[in-house]
Amino acid sequence: MLLNEGHNSRMSTLAELLESVRFNDDGLVPVIAQQWDSREVLMMAWMDLPALERTLATGEATYFSRSRGQQWVKGATSGHRQQVRTVMADCDGDTLLILVDQRGSACHTGDRTCFDAITVELEGDR
Amino acid sequence: MLLNEGHNSRMSTLAELLESVRFNDDGLVPVIAQQWDSREVLMMAWMDLPALERTLATGEATYFSRSRGQQWVKGATSGHRQQVRTVMADCDGDTLLILVDQRGSACHTGDRTCFDAITVELEGDR
Repeated sequence: MLLNEGHNSRMSTLAELLESVRFNDDGLVPVIAQQWDSREVLMMAWMDLPALERTLATGEATYFSRSRGQQWVKGATSGHRQQVRTVMADCDGDTLLILVDQRGSACHTGDRTCFDAITVELEGDR
Repeated sequence: MLLNEGHNSRMSTLAELLESVRFNDDGLVPVIAQQWDSREVLMMAWMDLPALERTLATGEATYFSRSRGQQWVKGATSGHRQQVRTVMADCDGDTLLILVDQRGSACHTGDRTCFDAITVELEGDR
């Protein structure tokens, strides 16, 4: 009984999430992937509705490649999969934040995150 | 002398950053703002080149509003400014991550972050 209530509660939130997302003119929404425990921001990529639905159904981050014009399951070839724990929509539904457990590297360069290419420190200059 | 060297080093990295950023067809790049110490992801917004240059020059996060078609200094009216400490470009230069010190709320709703509208927990369902 409690399990069912929990299940129903989750399902209604899934429906709310899907209803709240505002895809752009290309049918895409930007998705920020953050490592759930260390809170590192790993990458930003895009989902269309089928990629989001697949992510929600399988728990594996699935994106839409704008260059290849098709869905890709993160890590399907590299093994560097992202197990999704939490999906959050922002205040106006046009960006998603997902908390993931990243296996291996998030970046195709082999780096843990995509955000270590160039770093500029501003503090101390004013 | 050391100060000058440090300064030169910083400037060359600024130049590298500006050269690496790939703005989209609308001249914009998505920017993820993360609280530097708690590592909360606060919001995602957009910058055009002038907004990025202003952010780098002033240390205050300045975005470009797609709906209003103009620059806005975060918190200029609300007082909820973002002092920028670090600017990072991702591997292909099409997304920026900035580490900020957020005064007050990041979200226009008054919430600390924009990502607490809808939260779906996936873990435990598989």
